[in-house]
Amino acid sequence: MQDKLSLMIPGPTPVPETVLRALGRHPIGHRSGEFQSVVKRTTEQLKWLHQTTNDVLTITGSGTAAMEAGIINTLSRGDKILCGTNGKFGERWVKVANAYGLDVQIVNAEWGQPLNPEDFKEILEADENKEIKATIVTHSETSTGVINDLKAISQHVQKHGESIIIADCVTSLGACNVPMDEWGIDVIASGSQKGYMMPPGLSFVAMSERAWAAQKQSNLPKFYLDLNQYRNAGTKNSNPFTPAVNLYFALEASLDIMQTEGLKTIFERHNRHKTAAQEGMKAIGLPLFSAKGYGSPAITAVAPEHIDAEVLRKEVKQRFDILLAGGQDHLKGKVFRIGHLGFVNDRDVLTAIAAIESTLSSLGLLNGKIGEGLKAASAALK
Amino acid sequence: MQDKLSLMIPGPTPVPETVLRALGRHPIGHRSGEFQSVVKRTTEQLKWLHQTTNDVLTITGSGTAAMEAGIINTLSRGDKILCGTNGKFGERWVKVANAYGLDVQIVNAEWGQPLNPEDFKEILEADENKEIKATIVTHSETSTGVINDLKAISQHVQKHGESIIIADCVTSLGACNVPMDEWGIDVIASGSQKGYMMPPGLSFVAMSERAWAAQKQSNLPKFYLDLNQYRNAGTKNSNPFTPAVNLYFALEASLDIMQTEGLKTIFERHNRHKTAAQEGMKAIGLPLFSAKGYGSPAITAVAPEHIDAEVLRKEVKQRFDILLAGGQDHLKGKVFRIGHLGFVNDRDVLTAIAAIESTLSSLGLLNGKIGEGLKAASAALK
Repeated sequence: MQDKLSLMIPGPTPVPETVLRALGRHPIGHRSGEFQSVVKRTTEQLKWLHQTTNDVLTITGSGTAAMEAGIINTLSRGDKILCGTNGKFGERWVKVANAYGLDVQIVNAEWGQPLNPEDFKEILEADENKEIKATIVTHSETSTGVINDLKAISQHVQKHGESIIIADCVTSLGACNVPMDEWGIDVIASGSQKGYMMPPGLSFVAMSERAWAAQKQSNLPKFYLDLNQYRNAGTKNSNPFTPAVNLYFALEASLDIMQTEGLKTIFERHNRHKTAAQEGMKAIGLPLFSAKGYGSPAITAVAPEHIDAEVLRKEVKQRFDILLAGGQDHLKGKVFRIGHLGFVNDRDVLTAIAAIESTLSSLGLLNGKIGEGLKAASAALK
Repeated sequence: MQDKLSLMIPGPTPVPETVLRALGRHPIGHRSGEFQSVVKRTTEQLKWLHQTTNDVLTITGSGTAAMEAGIINTLSRGDKILCGTNGKFGERWVKVANAYGLDVQIVNAEWGQPLNPEDFKEILEADENKEIKATIVTHSETSTGVINDLKAISQHVQKHGESIIIADCVTSLGACNVPMDEWGIDVIASGSQKGYMMPPGLSFVAMSERAWAAQKQSNLPKFYLDLNQYRNAGTKNSNPFTPAVNLYFALEASLDIMQTEGLKTIFERHNRHKTAAQEGMKAIGLPLFSAKGYGSPAITAVAPEHIDAEVLRKEVKQRFDILLAGGQDHLKGKVFRIGHLGFVNDRDVLTAIAAIESTLSSLGLLNGKIGEGLKAASAALK
């Protein structure tokens, strides 16, 4: 039943009524002055969200389209790159890079563990001929609920001098601090159905001046994802191809709400929800999947022992109409994930913990007495 | 003022309230059973619209993304192709083909004139070594209001035997008859903000078995636009990347409305509106830009003599809040275009003619007495 569905997945995330109403407005011409105003306004809002003076471009497409755009606009066939992998999304960027004939060196960590910045440091320092053209990092690895130390990795990339750094911030932007300029990130990709509190369909690529310099050298073929066309159209507050006009209306409305709340408060809220989810799960004896201290502000992955995570997840959906995320690939059945990203309030998090606890109890799978999870989450939310 | 805006442009086209309400629903998980039902249903509806048993794939992106996908999934670097150009969109496919290193032979006609099927016949017959791998045709050339004879060109391509035919049906599908299977079209690209009566953001690629056979040989790099990933996910009524969930809701609603109206009635309506627009303009002494007998069912391009088309267009917008389209590229100021595509009724067309006539009269630019345009349009609508 959609009418009372509670989305606790890492995307699509819940959407405020104000944003849905903006989405459902009658469309206008995408070459009109009125629409140019929307493009101008949202571009400024996006820069605010990215804490940057760089270009932030809007693409009609998914987060993958934005990441692919970041990669194929800055690199050339045969270029050597480093790519961090500790989950499904890190692995996806390797696939994209391979599809375009890049020479990929993988920096791996086990699923659930964070990438080790020292691994990047070592490889980058050893690259005396400066052959590495780009370093790709997934900031918040949605498949495992791990947040990687993007800031530390970026510092090592800065010292290298030649490599740019491309970051997948799809589930970190709008959930925790990602100061693009301060950290020196060259390309940031993100998607609308995440921290943006919007339905899916728009994605975003922020490009530093170093990234644009790399773009001038890039020879990989592209057309719809050719960012130079977006940049040129952007100077006229326009788009190279017909954009999803109604999603732009929603974008303006959602960024309005975010600006009213303020970045600091948004980040504190996500941090509070992360802590509540973690403490709630630990209190009922369910181990976290992500390494201690590296839980994502967007999503908490839980690896219950001796319990089929899919059975629990389906029961919570059926009884309480709360949609949790399952485990991906080899983690299916072993992990479930609680999304606390975007338009989520304390009630949503408290309710999810209570529903999980209640469901385990009714399935006869709860160790200890009911209420410990609620108590721990409640304390964390205070 | 958006609240009373009448969109008479070739996209975005007007959207029914039912569709806007579907668009503004709360999103659901894109990996849920509920969403799989939406994908299954819309896929069946799309096959109905294309009059085909072939795969019809849905991409989150613009019509250009769909056309690019059709090209890069069926061809390889250096492949020889024919591309018809008689307007801005034909020229765009040449740009896409060039971006991917294809060997493009252009079949040109002047803007406003239709492509000559005999030109294709001649070149295809002379290609005894069967080097031409694809023939690209824009069915309804939106920039000039010309409908090309896709059926005749397709027959010549069938006789060639090796070349596939890729058609841009962005402003013909849902406006006039495009029987994919009957005409033997291998790839059809279209976009949601056109005959579909939806906001922009989704696009569609239909692929014949011959197109899939070509796909297996294709070596052009791609990831987000890799149609094989969409086909594989489609077997599970799913998507390879997060789709624009809310636009899918709108798609289901709009195709529902179209199925209720029926293809024959939809095509008759567009034909009636085309005739009314043409007769109305001729009656007030404004020449049509498209060659006689080749007017598009989606859009009527008008080339007023001794009148700045932009002045007229802006005055109609300001006085009556009707948005007409301007001329593109070198036609700016020389041409205006009346869109009659998608969710347009007889009132909309009659009103547009009346507003143009009234505006010309008030500008002192009307030859003859006011009412002749209305009379002619009225007769055509009867």
